[in-house]
Amino acid sequence: MAERRRSEATRQAILDAALELAGEVGYAKLSVEGIAARAGAGKQTIYRWWPSKGAVLLDALLAYTTGPSGRIDDVELPDTGDLSADLKAVLRATVEELNDPRLSAPMRALSTEILADPVLAADYADRLETPVRELKLRRLRRAVDAGEVSADADLDVVVDLLWGPLRTRWLYREGPLTKRYTDRVVDTVLNGIRRW
Amino acid sequence: MAERRRSEATRQAILDAALELAGEVGYAKLSVEGIAARAGAGKQTIYRWWPSKGAVLLDALLAYTTGPSGRIDDVELPDTGDLSADLKAVLRATVEELNDPRLSAPMRALSTEILADPVLAADYADRLETPVRELKLRRLRRAVDAGEVSADADLDVVVDLLWGPLRTRWLYREGPLTKRYTDRVVDTVLNGIRRW
Repeated sequence: MAERRRSEATRQAILDAALELAGEVGYAKLSVEGIAARAGAGKQTIYRWWPSKGAVLLDALLAYTTGPSGRIDDVELPDTGDLSADLKAVLRATVEELNDPRLSAPMRALSTEILADPVLAADYADRLETPVRELKLRRLRRAVDAGEVSADADLDVVVDLLWGPLRTRWLYREGPLTKRYTDRVVDTVLNGIRRW
Repeated sequence: MAERRRSEATRQAILDAALELAGEVGYAKLSVEGIAARAGAGKQTIYRWWPSKGAVLLDALLAYTTGPSGRIDDVELPDTGDLSADLKAVLRATVEELNDPRLSAPMRALSTEILADPVLAADYADRLETPVRELKLRRLRRAVDAGEVSADADLDVVVDLLWGPLRTRWLYREGPLTKRYTDRVVDTVLNGIRRW
């Protein structure tokens, strides 16, 4: 039992060190040696649990996003019965995360690496992208059931429309990430732009 | 005059070689030496005209996109008076480009490099992203003038909504790039999803 607790503490120290270091030195200079040194752990301990620095970083972001359980299924998007307000709240929270360099720097590091590493990309898709998309789809399906959203809407497209612009704007540094911007994304997707 | 024509032919050979090689070997293995060898030109000729392999690749994609003039201002998006049909045609053409590995591979190489190189990113923004966005905004403004689009629409957000999802889906290989997908993006942005 004490062993297991020690093991869990080491694991958490490694995840914290990976997030911190990725933010400080960037992905290219991040190394398993560096993470081990910062965490006060052995390099071989890291390699016993993870195949690569990218895998450590993915677990670190998962743990940060979901809390200690590491399970996204435990999370639900808010549902107050007002889809517009709920989506705005979720996207505003995402803006805050992306504007926080402690989180944004390791996320950018992981994003860049995913483009070059198909194995890490598949792992990311299975463990983070797909379950998070499922959360979003669940909230949208409830809005369809409640009669707020048209039953004809293609909800997969709607997820891309709501979250894609913020992601692209952030990744390519194409403009400031503001709550005004995400509010407008939500309003535009809900209302459309056609003059009837 | 003959000298100038020779010079232009060398420049074009270098741009063609950069596109071909980026597609064949990827950005990491692309080198100025390799481009020079493929183009039958001297390495010093390339460095006289461009500061880096990324700069060559950006010029190559610009020349491919705009034709020999290299000027995006000469291009206009189609305007048949039917915004929905025009946007669908433009996005379908983009899907064809992104599904063509000769173009998609060098574009992916440049996209990845831009994330890591702020100087190249600024050059890309000035010379490609901003003028292309201006084209899109011009077409949307004409739709507002024609009474097709609500005057309240935030056209910068609309550009992100129309082109962002395809870009993200392509960059992260998140799903197939189909004409059905882009048609649905256009319909959803025009009509919204709210059940009135």
